[in-house]
Amino acid sequence: MSKYDIIVLGSGPGGYVAAIRASQLGFKTAVVEKESLGGICLNWGCIPTKALLKSAQVFEYLKHADQYGLSVKEYDKDFDAVVKRSRGVAEGMSNGVKFLMKKNKIDVIDGFGKLKTGKKIDVDGKEYSADHIIIATGARSRELPSLPQDGKKVIGYREAMVLPKQPKSMIVVGSGAIGVEFAYFYKSMGTDVTIVEYLPNIVPVEDIDVSKQLEKSFKKSGIKIMTSAEVTSVDTSGKGVKATVKTSKGEEVLEADIILSAVGIKTNIEGIGLEDVGIAVDRDKILVNDFYQTNIPGYYAIGDVTPGQALAHVASAEAILCVEKIAGQHVQALDYGNIPGCTYCTPEIASVGLTEKQAKEQGIDIKVGKFPFSASGKASAAGNKDGFVKVIFDAKYGEWLGCHMIGAGVTDMIAEAVLGRKLETTGHEVLKTVHPHPTMSEAVMEAVAAAYDEVIHL
Amino acid sequence: MSKYDIIVLGSGPGGYVAAIRASQLGFKTAVVEKESLGGICLNWGCIPTKALLKSAQVFEYLKHADQYGLSVKEYDKDFDAVVKRSRGVAEGMSNGVKFLMKKNKIDVIDGFGKLKTGKKIDVDGKEYSADHIIIATGARSRELPSLPQDGKKVIGYREAMVLPKQPKSMIVVGSGAIGVEFAYFYKSMGTDVTIVEYLPNIVPVEDIDVSKQLEKSFKKSGIKIMTSAEVTSVDTSGKGVKATVKTSKGEEVLEADIILSAVGIKTNIEGIGLEDVGIAVDRDKILVNDFYQTNIPGYYAIGDVTPGQALAHVASAEAILCVEKIAGQHVQALDYGNIPGCTYCTPEIASVGLTEKQAKEQGIDIKVGKFPFSASGKASAAGNKDGFVKVIFDAKYGEWLGCHMIGAGVTDMIAEAVLGRKLETTGHEVLKTVHPHPTMSEAVMEAVAAAYDEVIHL
Repeated sequence: MSKYDIIVLGSGPGGYVAAIRASQLGFKTAVVEKESLGGICLNWGCIPTKALLKSAQVFEYLKHADQYGLSVKEYDKDFDAVVKRSRGVAEGMSNGVKFLMKKNKIDVIDGFGKLKTGKKIDVDGKEYSADHIIIATGARSRELPSLPQDGKKVIGYREAMVLPKQPKSMIVVGSGAIGVEFAYFYKSMGTDVTIVEYLPNIVPVEDIDVSKQLEKSFKKSGIKIMTSAEVTSVDTSGKGVKATVKTSKGEEVLEADIILSAVGIKTNIEGIGLEDVGIAVDRDKILVNDFYQTNIPGYYAIGDVTPGQALAHVASAEAILCVEKIAGQHVQALDYGNIPGCTYCTPEIASVGLTEKQAKEQGIDIKVGKFPFSASGKASAAGNKDGFVKVIFDAKYGEWLGCHMIGAGVTDMIAEAVLGRKLETTGHEVLKTVHPHPTMSEAVMEAVAAAYDEVIHL
Repeated sequence: MSKYDIIVLGSGPGGYVAAIRASQLGFKTAVVEKESLGGICLNWGCIPTKALLKSAQVFEYLKHADQYGLSVKEYDKDFDAVVKRSRGVAEGMSNGVKFLMKKNKIDVIDGFGKLKTGKKIDVDGKEYSADHIIIATGARSRELPSLPQDGKKVIGYREAMVLPKQPKSMIVVGSGAIGVEFAYFYKSMGTDVTIVEYLPNIVPVEDIDVSKQLEKSFKKSGIKIMTSAEVTSVDTSGKGVKATVKTSKGEEVLEADIILSAVGIKTNIEGIGLEDVGIAVDRDKILVNDFYQTNIPGYYAIGDVTPGQALAHVASAEAILCVEKIAGQHVQALDYGNIPGCTYCTPEIASVGLTEKQAKEQGIDIKVGKFPFSASGKASAAGNKDGFVKVIFDAKYGEWLGCHMIGAGVTDMIAEAVLGRKLETTGHEVLKTVHPHPTMSEAVMEAVAAAYDEVIHL
């Protein structure tokens, strides 16, 4: 029986990062993976979708080349080539993780791992033991009872990434990040897209102003949007699919080639031995303390299987903290109130902290500032005038409660707000930080200025 | 004679921002402008060049559409339309400043202003007085004696923005931000471009690694680069221009349609009455104290005419501080060591603080971290693998001394480093700030991790 200091179950952005950090800290480490190194994020999530979206973005430039003084006579997309490029990028990244495992002398154990008591893992009949076992098995697409996935006409994100043929029409159920990213991608490629969202607004976790802006931009691009709408049943017996959608106005039947179900995720906690070991689970999540220890000593859990936000960067941050704590380092618990969220459709969305509504619901006296990109020189020059930056400060103490952005490149701009909040900045410190001109990032400074009635360009 | 609280001479990003802030603080304000509101920045600098560069960037997408699974059969640029778009953007922004002047009830006095004693300004024969006069007359393209500009074959940035015809070949003398931006733009449009730089590296104010990366990228794109090279004479007598270039290997004569001289700027301090009033000037700059007061009470100077970096965002920051100080606010002097610099060619460059060489020359014991975009998932997905983020920390105190970036979108990413440095962050605070995945901004976190031997993805 092979013995390790640390075995990580799952090699997604939680698992492989935990393994690398463990190796850096001198632990003999192994990672167990049943499929491809890198997990969903690298193979079926963050990375390949960004590749698809980049093709869509470039395709939009082809369509609108005349707006930049350019002309394109004949152009087209090759759907297969777009998908192939995306798969190539994912494969490259997965190979990158393989390289990192080797470089860090981490053993990769192929197969399905099952936890056993006594800090052991069984991988397809072979047993391994470790002083510390980290569970990082992640999650998959959630299935609604009213919307069972057959993988062909009713699909999840995984199939949506590699459809053998571009559908002429698609119904996207759910408008979180995954839903709106695919809606944008397929619309850009020429598919007729309808979004069906159960809640009153699309991207419902975002600040209401962001939801409204995205709805406006999407509608302008021809995406149909139904909110406060529920798919009650689907009929896949015909050529395409028929979805019965219930709204306040009554029932309506939509027809499409394909339905993409993007209604959230379900954790991968079945069959991995949690019950045998006695690891406590509540509402589909493994319970952990601030440093990712489960109720059973020596067993830890990180990433989507735990209660924090189901995001790759959260998993990676948890991975590092979990391992550093095991190594006896003095670590601070992760601040789940300061986790950025990003959505990569056009316009992009990035946000961190409280929405205006949340802040008000908490009874905080707030100052709100908003700066539209329509007033930004860089945005005008680049032809990216859609969107804005909105900031929320505590009126009394000056704390930066929230930052909400929608527009070109904002997913790379949110880091400033996250760092500023971590360092407990005040609005005036942001205001007196010289932002380069002309950049989209000036909008952060201007939004803060707006909150304090000092905005220049409005 | 009209009397104001504050008169601002010049309406560039120093002048118009000073006027707006003055009006916000209750001052009766006027701004004097001899040409177009917004000054060089809006009309002949930052903004129209960014518009040109965006057209170039989109044109590159047309050329390389196949890399994204797309196909373009026939495409072209319309040089006139590209220039026209740029002028339209500039005009829009200038009209925006006109709107802001009106909204803020600022009088715009058209004409050439000349300072007089007794806090007066003569504008084409009409006299105005104020309690405070702010000089913000900016700068223009500097002429070298060996490279006199005729505005046709030997031109400055202004002409380069509106050439009536695209040149077949161009020699760009000087490789600061202006030089390399035009080099990239014209090369992208199809012009044969040669850069001649006096110093050993292009973009010589940047960290040496950035210079080397840009040289590599530019050479790959077909731009010819001569460093440690000096134009000793030009001959415009023939059809095009001939430039005699001296290098360590001897003299060489280059031929081209046009030479762009981009060798720095010359302040606009002639004929504006500085001598009459007795305002002290040294080496082409108006001398000011920390709050932009000249040696003569009631006269202030901001922007390119003063010794700080000649950048639009510096001028705007100085404008605000100058006016807030006049208003009696408690203000802190600007930290000229924390001013970001940006260059918008492809790949973009953004930097703040000390270069590695500068830090070493100051005898500081440093930690250096570097993360290449080739190891970034987002960069791979977007096809933007050129470039890196490099960070420099004080090894003893953990101070973030410098941050140097080259790559796609970095001009919007540098704000994080500027804010972090302003808030006196340490490396570990940046490292423990959760950067969203997958973004280019993760490279900042990873570069910091590399400096502390904790990098995950290398």
